Amino acid sequence: MNPLKIFSDSHLTGRAEQLFQDGVSPHEILIPKTRPASILSKPEPDPSFALADIAFGQPDVESIRQSDKLKWLHVSTAGFTRYDTPEFRSMVKERGLIVTNSSSVYAEACADHALAFMLAQSRVLPAALPSHAANGDAEWLRLRGASVSLRGQSLVILGYGAIALELVKLLAPFDMKITAMRRSPRGDEAFPTVTPLNLPAALAMADHVINILPENAESIRFVNANLLAQMKPGAVFYNIGRGTTVDQDDLLAALRSGHLAKAWLDVTDPEPLPADHPLRKEPNCHITPHIAGGHAEETVTLVNHFLRNFRLYLAGEPLRDRIM
Amino acid sequence: MNPLKIFSDSHLTGRAEQLFQDGVSPHEILIPKTRPASILSKPEPDPSFALADIAFGQPDVESIRQSDKLKWLHVSTAGFTRYDTPEFRSMVKERGLIVTNSSSVYAEACADHALAFMLAQSRVLPAALPSHAANGDAEWLRLRGASVSLRGQSLVILGYGAIALELVKLLAPFDMKITAMRRSPRGDEAFPTVTPLNLPAALAMADHVINILPENAESIRFVNANLLAQMKPGAVFYNIGRGTTVDQDDLLAALRSGHLAKAWLDVTDPEPLPADHPLRKEPNCHITPHIAGGHAEETVTLVNHFLRNFRLYLAGEPLRDRIM
Repeated sequence: MNPLKIFSDSHLTGRAEQLFQDGVSPHEILIPKTRPASILSKPEPDPSFALADIAFGQPDVESIRQSDKLKWLHVSTAGFTRYDTPEFRSMVKERGLIVTNSSSVYAEACADHALAFMLAQSRVLPAALPSHAANGDAEWLRLRGASVSLRGQSLVILGYGAIALELVKLLAPFDMKITAMRRSPRGDEAFPTVTPLNLPAALAMADHVINILPENAESIRFVNANLLAQMKPGAVFYNIGRGTTVDQDDLLAALRSGHLAKAWLDVTDPEPLPADHPLRKEPNCHITPHIAGGHAEETVTLVNHFLRNFRLYLAGEPLRDRIM
Repeated sequence: MNPLKIFSDSHLTGRAEQLFQDGVSPHEILIPKTRPASILSKPEPDPSFALADIAFGQPDVESIRQSDKLKWLHVSTAGFTRYDTPEFRSMVKERGLIVTNSSSVYAEACADHALAFMLAQSRVLPAALPSHAANGDAEWLRLRGASVSLRGQSLVILGYGAIALELVKLLAPFDMKITAMRRSPRGDEAFPTVTPLNLPAALAMADHVINILPENAESIRFVNANLLAQMKPGAVFYNIGRGTTVDQDDLLAALRSGHLAKAWLDVTDPEPLPADHPLRKEPNCHITPHIAGGHAEETVTLVNHFLRNFRLYLAGEPLRDRIM
């Protein structure tokens, strides 16, 4: 077999870069002249892309469309908004292109982040960490009484995928009543799911609602005033999906009215949220800056995941995390 | 049977008080004139104690010694420092007194609190929550890279009891290597234990060390410079036991030298820690004000636990959480 050409616009350095080079050798790596500043910024076309058999990263859609060589695109993130359009999907189908993503790489960290949020909420850490309460005083009694165990509570997860499956594993010891919303349930789900049609009844019962929806035409502003109103008064809302799937103004209104008790957001719209954005000043809203999937040696995990799929690809076997 | 007399110095109000009254009826409740201001303050003797068959709360040791009627003491906390002396234990043995505590009431909340600390640490919440990092910038990359998964890491728990057992259940999905230190292993432990003699080898390997030791003559300052030096460089230390079992100055030195990466404390010595205490200003130390066992409707759980034991007592069956 002739050496394959692998286009990679991922920022790989040190150990990850070495792993990548060693792992694909003797196949050839194509590096573009400029790499996207961030995974959310628009990538620029690069002439080398036309030569690539495989792409690993976030290449621009137009370059993919124009390529007559590309066989497999491995997206270096869990989200794949720029590729998630009917036009792209039909082009992929027509050309027999394989598209995989990196959801396995980020699912564990995202699930950990969601559980960290839920437990920080349950154990009132934002109020307790700065507190100087003394044993027996009013503040101490208030803090202790505000801690509500996750045990036996109910949870709705918006979206059913790698993160939801991982989170459900972590929550098993808490014996929560868990339901996920899945657009098209397949009947083989690991725990109960509802369609968007049956969501309102589930939301009305849920103590916690976690949004992990990816961004696409159907999910933009999915969590809006209408959906928030269906949630149980006093519910806690978490977003670790994409900021754009939640209407920030509607969320703010639900927090200000007291309908929602708290919101924990890892993603916002826009990102970063401006310093003077009202959600930053809302005392019942806690925000981390889109780090839920992050973890030490992340690019090493990312490269190892690609390389595992690369070996499967060379062997002609089904790839992991195939999305199209 | 004549009605029993139950001495109770617990602060019970509302639903918990009603539950207690209904639950023990037709037996008689003795309430002292003054109740201890907090569970850690010294209780005052009360003349009514001499009439009690059963005590529920934190009665003073001298009153127990002088009583010739008391059969059963149910301590309203998990800790029982004031009763944990050789003199008290031998008096209990001689008199055939039953002593139970409330560890079941607080174990789940304490385990939740420990896991909340561990995940807040793993997901760098103290740095991430106030951050305005933007996708791709240096701070963002640093935050993502600082998140270290608990998966596969090793943990030493100082103390083996209800909290440790509950915590190990919660940690099961993370597949950690867990060892507990138990003064006298019985051979029926649910996971590996070491004696204090074999502790140094376990500490040298541990990424996380959680102290849940109760306070007694042997545990005071158990975690001192010597023990801290045995921990692996970069380890994270947690205290949800008693503040006095840790030498605060030695802990501060271990944090300042960088030998320990972080400390998460729910208990300190003294409590509350003075506002100008150096541990409060130490950026790698996170403190909550002794709330780990707290939870909504805590006194209801407490009374229900007592009442379950009360029914067992009346039936002549073995009591739960018997400590002497």
